[in-house]
Amino acid sequence: MSASVSDPTGLHRVLDDRVVLPQAAARLDARRELWPDEVRVRVEKLNLDAASYRQLEGKHAAPGGTVDGDAVRAEVLDIVATRGKMQNPVTGSGGMLVGTVEAVGEESPLGLQVGDRVATLVSLSLTPLVIEDGLRDWDGLAEQVPCDGYAVLFGRSIAAVIPEDLDPDLSLSVMDVCGAPALTARVVGEYAARGGEVTAAVVGGAGKSGSLSLAAARAAGATRTIGVVPHEREAALLREAGIADEVVLADARDPIALRDAVVAAGGPAQVTVVCVDVPGCEGGAILATAERGTVIFFSMATSFSAAALGAEGLAADVTMLVGNGYAPGHAAYALDLLRSVPGVRSLFERRLASHQGPAGGAN
Amino acid sequence: MSASVSDPTGLHRVLDDRVVLPQAAARLDARRELWPDEVRVRVEKLNLDAASYRQLEGKHAAPGGTVDGDAVRAEVLDIVATRGKMQNPVTGSGGMLVGTVEAVGEESPLGLQVGDRVATLVSLSLTPLVIEDGLRDWDGLAEQVPCDGYAVLFGRSIAAVIPEDLDPDLSLSVMDVCGAPALTARVVGEYAARGGEVTAAVVGGAGKSGSLSLAAARAAGATRTIGVVPHEREAALLREAGIADEVVLADARDPIALRDAVVAAGGPAQVTVVCVDVPGCEGGAILATAERGTVIFFSMATSFSAAALGAEGLAADVTMLVGNGYAPGHAAYALDLLRSVPGVRSLFERRLASHQGPAGGAN
Repeated sequence: MSASVSDPTGLHRVLDDRVVLPQAAARLDARRELWPDEVRVRVEKLNLDAASYRQLEGKHAAPGGTVDGDAVRAEVLDIVATRGKMQNPVTGSGGMLVGTVEAVGEESPLGLQVGDRVATLVSLSLTPLVIEDGLRDWDGLAEQVPCDGYAVLFGRSIAAVIPEDLDPDLSLSVMDVCGAPALTARVVGEYAARGGEVTAAVVGGAGKSGSLSLAAARAAGATRTIGVVPHEREAALLREAGIADEVVLADARDPIALRDAVVAAGGPAQVTVVCVDVPGCEGGAILATAERGTVIFFSMATSFSAAALGAEGLAADVTMLVGNGYAPGHAAYALDLLRSVPGVRSLFERRLASHQGPAGGAN
Repeated sequence: MSASVSDPTGLHRVLDDRVVLPQAAARLDARRELWPDEVRVRVEKLNLDAASYRQLEGKHAAPGGTVDGDAVRAEVLDIVATRGKMQNPVTGSGGMLVGTVEAVGEESPLGLQVGDRVATLVSLSLTPLVIEDGLRDWDGLAEQVPCDGYAVLFGRSIAAVIPEDLDPDLSLSVMDVCGAPALTARVVGEYAARGGEVTAAVVGGAGKSGSLSLAAARAAGATRTIGVVPHEREAALLREAGIADEVVLADARDPIALRDAVVAAGGPAQVTVVCVDVPGCEGGAILATAERGTVIFFSMATSFSAAALGAEGLAADVTMLVGNGYAPGHAAYALDLLRSVPGVRSLFERRLASHQGPAGGAN
């Protein structure tokens, strides 16, 4: 398909024969020229999605475990050249990018100015991208990819200006998961508006999205917040951060253990937020939630059918939400939580310093 | 695991080494003796889930297409003997059963009496089952399986007494999808309570769950209902039924076509209900929905990540619900819709008479 008129979804850049949105497309038109509602960004860094990088790393590792960085780099270059976007063909995921606005179409609704330093909050899996430096400054051995090239934002894309008062890596790390606190705050706020006790349980409470969600739940009026973590090490970190009223240990994949831990800490919860990227947490989250409560699934490891059939099989009258990564103002809200809640900031800074999270599982 | 104390989830009958709920279990203990909160049902018929039967049929079909019914029957017997439940190992799905209550544990909370003729509203994939007649009355060539044997219901299971004023097959056909109208009514009712226009669009509006959802949306206060169907034949049926204010044609897998069809009919919708069992409807459903609207996904073909990343990629501030098959009173509500809305009843009766739906896709 080739279109002379643009669509805010980016449909005009889809090269597939079938009508599909850019994310589902095999190939995008990554031409440099902009349609009137588009924005072009000069890229300085790609952050590959963790699942995508793990797949590439595993594919190009020798039996002993040594990763062939040149082969990883060659494959990323090949994917982008072939597809016009960085979307891992196996995992389907992308990542995000950082860059500087270099051109703004006259009809762009995004409110960006040339020279703004921005992070994209829509996935690389739907963002037209051209790499112009052969990724010469990347060794292929980490998810952070220094890169010179350009990317295109559509009318409905989202990009956030990187604030000047925070370390850029800290901002990016927050923006990466900023949908979770926004939706948590909205849902907890709805329960709080009805009056009465509102208990919010966050599974994976010491992780990035989990710690922000705990802080958001408290800010939105939860009367009790429960952080669920898998190990004593994470429990100690979360207690020290002081962002949960109760910290409990449970394997989220064990439905009875998760239920019992949350109930013992003052549950069941009116709102349960799942922030751990491991499969099999649906049943426990449902059982940890009160009747007429809400489960918010932010983990990409969530199985739609396990959630739907699980709730039915348990005769559980709970509302189950697919965690939407977008809400208006989500990046600004998450950054404000980071600025105003010292415990959240300390968890993020500790994570950045160690180049990985306090423990596996939580994202 | 072997437990002397029962758990309302049925955990005490799981034979796996890991702690998993009955639906996720490889094997259940299908012993005849009841724990105090259980109910035993004498089975007269199994209704295999459509996806499960299709898989079995395809596996045992000759190249010419002839299905080996004996082989299908043998495999069902083997699954039930091995797993203690009828859960297709490939699709993970089960189905439902009809039978008569033959024993009620003294602590059962289900309110059933010995002699009640019931349908189970929880999946066969978590229901302990023993087949005692070798399925001798089933030719293996249809989803409806005459069967003598017994099944066990847990404390949290759901079974509905089959009403005497309706054809039992009609009742079963309604109960099979009764979660959809209940949740649709709840969500539409919440929007209606805020005042203003409420447009509800049902994708797959001529199908079983779709037609009930259209009737539920209208009953709950939708000011405009839109039924989306794939072909003119279904459109004619739906117009004749008179249960949608607008009937529009669109391929639900084409996101732009679905969006444009719903918008042309008076949308975008405050509430969009997805009732077609085909993959790839997430993007169109999101685009057909107004900002701050809600998408309810009832299709088991829904992809969690396609919904989550799709909404984020489109910067769509929509609430997305995993369609929960359970809500209190859902079976009675759906049966009441069937009794009170002639157009719904005529669609169901026509479907039963033809032994299949008005068209593929809708469930």
